[in-house]
Amino acid sequence: MATVKLLSDDELSPAARAVFADIRATRGSDFVNNFWRALAHDPVTLKRTWDSLKVVMGPGILDPKVKEMLYIAVSIAHACPYCIHSHTAAARAKGMSEAEYAELVAIVGMAAETNRLVTALGVPVDREFEVG
Amino acid sequence: MATVKLLSDDELSPAARAVFADIRATRGSDFVNNFWRALAHDPVTLKRTWDSLKVVMGPGILDPKVKEMLYIAVSIAHACPYCIHSHTAAARAKGMSEAEYAELVAIVGMAAETNRLVTALGVPVDREFEVG
Amino acid sequence: MATVKLLSDDELSPAARAVFADIRATRGSDFVNNFWRALAHDPVTLKRTWDSLKVVMGPGILDPKVKEMLYIAVSIAHACPYCIHSHTAAARAKGMSEAEYAELVAIVGMAAETNRLVTALGVPVDREFEVG
Amino acid sequence: MATVKLLSDDELSPAARAVFADIRATRGSDFVNNFWRALAHDPVTLKRTWDSLKVVMGPGILDPKVKEMLYIAVSIAHACPYCIHSHTAAARAKGMSEAEYAELVAIVGMAAETNRLVTALGVPVDREFEVG
Amino acid sequence: MATVKLLSDDELSPAARAVFADIRATRGSDFVNNFWRALAHDPVTLKRTWDSLKVVMGPGILDPKVKEMLYIAVSIAHACPYCIHSHTAAARAKGMSEAEYAELVAIVGMAAETNRLVTALGVPVDREFEVG
Amino acid sequence: MATVKLLSDDELSPAARAVFADIRATRGSDFVNNFWRALAHDPVTLKRTWDSLKVVMGPGILDPKVKEMLYIAVSIAHACPYCIHSHTAAARAKGMSEAEYAELVAIVGMAAETNRLVTALGVPVDREFEVG
Repeated sequence: MATVKLLSDDELSPAARAVFADIRATRGSDFVNNFWRALAHDPVTLKRTWDSLKVVMGPGILDPKVKEMLYIAVSIAHACPYCIHSHTAAARAKGMSEAEYAELVAIVGMAAETNRLVTALGVPVDREFEVG
Repeated sequence: MATVKLLSDDELSPAARAVFADIRATRGSDFVNNFWRALAHDPVTLKRTWDSLKVVMGPGILDPKVKEMLYIAVSIAHACPYCIHSHTAAARAKGMSEAEYAELVAIVGMAAETNRLVTALGVPVDREFEVG
Repeated sequence: MATVKLLSDDELSPAARAVFADIRATRGSDFVNNFWRALAHDPVTLKRTWDSLKVVMGPGILDPKVKEMLYIAVSIAHACPYCIHSHTAAARAKGMSEAEYAELVAIVGMAAETNRLVTALGVPVDREFEVG
Repeated sequence: MATVKLLSDDELSPAARAVFADIRATRGSDFVNNFWRALAHDPVTLKRTWDSLKVVMGPGILDPKVKEMLYIAVSIAHACPYCIHSHTAAARAKGMSEAEYAELVAIVGMAAETNRLVTALGVPVDREFEVG
Repeated sequence: MATVKLLSDDELSPAARAVFADIRATRGSDFVNNFWRALAHDPVTLKRTWDSLKVVMGPGILDPKVKEMLYIAVSIAHACPYCIHSHTAAARAKGMSEAEYAELVAIVGMAAETNRLVTALGVPVDREFEVG
Repeated sequence: MATVKLLSDDELSPAARAVFADIRATRGSDFVNNFWRALAHDPVTLKRTWDSLKVVMGPGILDPKVKEMLYIAVSIAHACPYCIHSHTAAARAKGMSEAEYAELVAIVGMAAETNRLVTALGVPVDREFEVG
């Protein structure tokens, strides 16, 4: 149900081919998922997105598993099934247990509920929570 | 700009008063933020929400700081300024550093970008990501 | 914090003036709220929106109060504070009690929670729920 | 396309089994829909969610059919197809006619339109709509 | 997976039939897409929606192709796959090239990212951006 | 109401200072808006975001004014008032007339309405709209 054709390895432009090679090298796996195959029509956005993703999701202060879990939380709130599937797979590969995923899901649900309660009631920000 | 009046301690029903007492005891602080004061008109929802929050955000598998960060991520995606302010305050109180918050914010932004790219392109879920 | 100037009665074009007159006549009140004053720069959209609103929110099968409550529920989910404020005022004017509003808010919160749980878990639609 | 396996009755833990029994008893039906089967991996969230749902959607001030309709309105705004399917089924079972559903849908669409107009124009809340 | 049955030409009420005739005449094509077939149960909303769409998407100041692209951008942000599919088809029929679609998609992704950064950081509106 | 302090020019790290210099040079203006001042705490994200924005919003196939209008459309759908204010200012600086903004707003509203109608009715994608 894509709005663009997913490109196979044979259909890649040289610029897209180079990004795919870096994805494979970085991940140590030959598998390149559909997201990149859909984005491969636009090598500039493909490269920019992959470069950003490497920086943002690469080594930092937070645990890699936690970073994937934050990614999942946003993807749920944005109602993006593909994103949830790909990042739960990534988080599991990085060690997320089923119990941790269950806890994540419970938090996302709880946050959704209180977010809407707050918005409904129009609660003003407490002075104690303001910065600077 | 609330849609209901924020209740002061003097205006609480006995049922709401009991929940406020538990909030204060659980948190070890006299401060009760506006969310609960707005919710206090409805003691059933007040109690149910507080009880759920204690379970969901209480001791579990994930680090308490990480749990608050997941809460923030959802609140950003839902565009709830109050929720972002209160939970960044909570996360900071539980040890979130400014560098960790910056990393969280970068991840949320990145997830938002790729979520929309995926949705725009209508990327189908790879078989490798499906469960069960 | 508007992105367009709110027009006073003196600044209206004849086409906008006619719509304002109909708003006042239909509502039996001289008060015209800011939404229409912001929209008045574009008399075509002003008239089309007001005409649609009269049809959709006018006499139908559902109780007028219930219709306003549905409007509020959507406005909460869309994080539109102005809409929540104007439609809670309208719903109250049509008889919504504070207890009814509290029940609405609890439902919206609950739906938000389960919506996110469902999306997180990627629950497939049961055959029993499909139509046609 | 689930991110967790849907559990059959044979695969339930004792805690989940007890919740399923209560769902069946409360609803007077043997049918347990996929949402609960996906949630059954986490008996604490399963029980908490079911208990909350019983309180929120159980007898109150508003008509049960109206409560389901509010639930649907939120589910549409959150783009949750499963939730829309399950709650339109529930609302129909509680007496929602096709004409009532059509009116609901029209209201949700109208609210979505004006919500975005308001947000686009940055309309400030009229003093007349503020509370407290 | 519809919540209402899609009506074939033979099942239309006279009022719906008249709208379908106008859709065909306006578009110069016999094809009527599923959206209108789902909406046809409610001839009042069918007619109102079609009439509005003709005004809003008909000749104006902006290029018809640009108007479709704005439509797509909103549909992506609302996570509406049907809307994205139908309006990318319409935009392509009005001359949108694949390179233009790629640029649109990149902008939507970028806006999504900065939107969430802004919301996360709670950035106050600069005085320079305020109107009136 | 920020969640981080907005940095003045005097408080910038050397890395952030370099980005600010590029913003000023690129825009030919000394004014640096609050978004960048909030982001300046995290020079890596500051630089990555500015670099991406220059690529995405810089010279391409689409008219610069149209690109800003697409940005606005997404910002409205995401309920981000700051983003709407900053990008309507940018679009006006690039020649967007008030009539064009009014047309944009009408399209966004219309899309929001039909998006929700489609989602409510669960309309399946027509085969004619599928790609590849």
